[in-house]
Amino acid sequence: MSNAVFYHAGCPVCLGAEQMLVDALDQNKYTLESVHLGTHPNRIEAAEASGVISVPALVMDDQVFHINFGAALADLKS
Amino acid sequence: MSNAVFYHAGCPVCLGAEQMLVDALDQNKYTLESVHLGTHPNRIEAAEASGVISVPALVMDDQVFHINFGAALADLKS
Repeated sequence: MSNAVFYHAGCPVCLGAEQMLVDALDQNKYTLESVHLGTHPNRIEAAEASGVISVPALVMDDQVFHINFGAALADLKS
Repeated sequence: MSNAVFYHAGCPVCLGAEQMLVDALDQNKYTLESVHLGTHPNRIEAAEASGVISVPALVMDDQVFHINFGAALADLKS
């Protein structure tokens, strides 16, 4: 069982991507954790360290997948 | 069973995204078709009609998810 972390900021683009992942991800293989960086800014640093540049993004097996574009991580920091 | 179409152009970014999808997609729910637009340029028009702007991209339930960035669709047309 691997852990997949979905970083988002509550934006419409983010919610669309999240719904896709909830629907499509093989939940026998992956546990999906959804992290709202707007309400949990303390997680921004770890997201950045994983290579996340914008949200929505999925971090899975040490790889980052930016899915469409909602907001830049830099804009969530201010 | 829904159909998911993954459009790519054989680029390293594309292959990384494809491997993630092959690993993570719930194959009890989705059949994944992988289309190489470099070798199958006749599929570019349909990709574009689905809203694909760049590859790699996943089209699923009429929604387009651009996953990272490998190449612009426009650059595959020439």
